[in-house]
Parts: sequence; C-alpha cells; structure tokens
Amino acid sequence: MTVKTFSIPLNTKGNADIAEITHDVAQVIGKSGIQDGIVTIFTPSSTSTLTTIEYEAGCLSDLRRLLDQIAPAGKDYAHHARWGDDNGHSHVRAALLKPFLTVPFVKGSMTLGTWQQIIFIDFDTRPRRRELVVQVMGE
Amino acid sequence: MTVKTFSIPLNTKGNADIAEITHDVAQVIGKSGIQDGIVTIFTPSSTSTLTTIEYEAGCLSDLRRLLDQIAPAGKDYAHHARWGDDNGHSHVRAALLKPFLTVPFVKGSMTLGTWQQIIFIDFDTRPRRRELVVQVMGE
Amino acid sequence: MTVKTFSIPLNTKGNADIAEITHDVAQVIGKSGIQDGIVTIFTPSSTSTLTTIEYEAGCLSDLRRLLDQIAPAGKDYAHHARWGDDNGHSHVRAALLKPFLTVPFVKGSMTLGTWQQIIFIDFDTRPRRRELVVQVMGE
Repeated sequence: MTVKTFSIPLNTKGNADIAEITHDVAQVIGKSGIQDGIVTIFTPSSTSTLTTIEYEAGCLSDLRRLLDQIAPAGKDYAHHARWGDDNGHSHVRAALLKPFLTVPFVKGSMTLGTWQQIIFIDFDTRPRRRELVVQVMGE
Repeated sequence: MTVKTFSIPLNTKGNADIAEITHDVAQVIGKSGIQDGIVTIFTPSSTSTLTTIEYEAGCLSDLRRLLDQIAPAGKDYAHHARWGDDNGHSHVRAALLKPFLTVPFVKGSMTLGTWQQIIFIDFDTRPRRRELVVQVMGE
Repeated sequence: MTVKTFSIPLNTKGNADIAEITHDVAQVIGKSGIQDGIVTIFTPSSTSTLTTIEYEAGCLSDLRRLLDQIAPAGKDYAHHARWGDDNGHSHVRAALLKPFLTVPFVKGSMTLGTWQQIIFIDFDTRPRRRELVVQVMGE
C-alpha cells in the first residue's frame, strides 16, 4: 500500500465554466503505478467543486440552470459587504457541493459508468488558474 | 494495509426509489477481513446517488419531496432534446448529490449513528439493475 | 501505511450552528504521526454535516439563508408525524449534504486553500453534544 500526490493545473473562465477531467485523472492513476485503490480529487478553493455527470451539452446546461436557481448570481449576498466581492453565490454553491470527489479504481481503471464523466466546475466570477490536488492511495 | 473491492447488485424501481443497504455494506466489510479503515460505496451511474438518513417513512418522503422541488420531473430539460430521454431531472439530481459515500469503520463496525442508515437512491425514470462498487481499504 | 481513528467532541447550539474545526483536524493529523494521506471527518448523526467555506461572517450567513430556502424550518414535514419531532428540515438538509468530508494531506499539512476552512453544521433544533469521527490513513 502506498500514497502518491499529484496535481492537475486548469485555466477556467469562471461563471460555472465546466472542465471535463476524466482523462487527466486516469493519466495520474497510470503514472502512480498503483493498481487498486481510491483517487481523491480535491480543489483547494472555496468557489469551485467536482462531481460526475453524463458529459453532454444538454446535461451541462441543465446543471448550470439548476445551480442558477438554487443560488442565483446578481442577488444580494452578505459576503459582498465584506470585501466588495460579487461572488457570494460562488461561495454558497461551493459549500453546498463540497470541494472533493472520490472514485475507486481496480486494475488501474476507475469504476465509472459508461455515461459518467468527472467534471470540475468553477463558480467564481472571473477566469482563474486552478491547481487540483489528485491523491492516489492503494496497492 | 490492504484494499479489496466488492459489488452489491440491486434491482430498483426508479423514480427516486430508495434502497436501504446498511446491512449489505456491513456484510462486505465482514467479508473483507479488514478491521479499521474506510469503505467507499460508489454508483457507476449518472442518475443515482448514495447518502445517509434516518430510515423512517416520514424522512424518506420528506427527502423525495425536497428533490422534487429542487429538480422537478416533467419539466423541460435540455438533456431531453439530445436523446429523446425524459430523465433530465435524474441527471441533475445525481450530479448535485454525487455518486459516492465514504464511511469509516473501527474494529469491523461502521461509525454510523444509531439513527443513521445508508441509502441508495435511483433517480432514473424506469426500473434499473444496478451494481454498486464497494471498496474496503484499511488494516 | 497505517490507519488511526480519533474523535473531536463538540457542543453545538443547533439551528444551523456552525463550528470551525480546521485546527482541531490539523492537530489530529499531527497526533497521528502520518505524513501523507487522507483524513475522513464523519458525523455519526442524521441531522448534521461537514463542508468547507471561507470562514467569514457574510459567507456563513449566506449559506444559512440558502439552506433556509432549500429546506425551511417550521414547514410541515412527514417526519414530524412519526415522533412528534420538529426537525424534519434538519434531516433532509443532512441527507442532501451527507455526513462526511475527505481532505488529502501532504507532509503533515492539509491541501486546503488559503480562504478555505473546515466547518461542522448542526441542523438539529436544540443544543447537542456531538462526537466527530476523524480517521487518518496514509504513510
């Protein structure tokens, strides 16, 4: 059993920009040389998240619309009063969805479904440079 | 330290059908022979999820109603245009809730509360055969 | 590779009382002597949760308001009929947010962002004594 930590750099456009990172995560697992275990993908940020979805334009647009309904941009947030920021909705969305995703893998392959891809969502209101933590643990 | 991967097969009715799987997961941990560690339960699907709840008819009905409010069935979803599917709400609910649950265990027993059970929720709109991945890691 | 399990006791006020526990978790990792791996923080309860947020009064108040909108207190919940309880909203919020958080750590330090703190939220409707499970796994 061993643990190895990698990172995946990403340039995002913000405003619920979605990046598909399934292949990047699969590559990291390959690089680790670990065959069976879990991969933890973590965003060291309070305005972004990770989840899985069928990576298809309709689903992505439906998810963005759902998040706009749950926590709309452009509304009055108490966080704005603090820093003059405009990203209160980004913070509450990220807190609700949490900053990580765990996926088991077996014989070097993640146990994802055929129509299930890993996505990173950046809720911040401007382009950001992100550095995801990808930790592989197993044997 | 070691890692062992099992599966739990399930037949569901879809439409937010809820299956209580606490005992199934406990059995898998027993079978693994691992005493202390984490169990990761993962659904290889983009229309279902896992969480914990007090497994009581009232709580289950309240949770279903909440999910109906957050992402109603029967509404117009962009995903429907893609495949002629009717399960856009299933996809966004699953993306919001994520496809996995992690529970620590100590001396062979999960650290669940007395009123806390593990459930699988199938958001798809038809009966499905599911195969959950249950990975046990520890020593 | 090894696994060690600790607990963090907390007295909460309930009603979405938020406790910042980043330092408590960091101390547990230090005590474990483990350098690289994951920490799993788990609440053995069906009325509380864990997540990360920028720990700033505005963000906390925005998150509480969001949760009040998603699952308001004082509404009619089916769970109330069961036990005469008044915490149906606490249960559905906890099921939606799930009872755990996983954070990787490297050289003894969690890979959190600068503006990202770990919080515990107690959704129950009265003060509670909580005992969080904190399991450290790695090498």
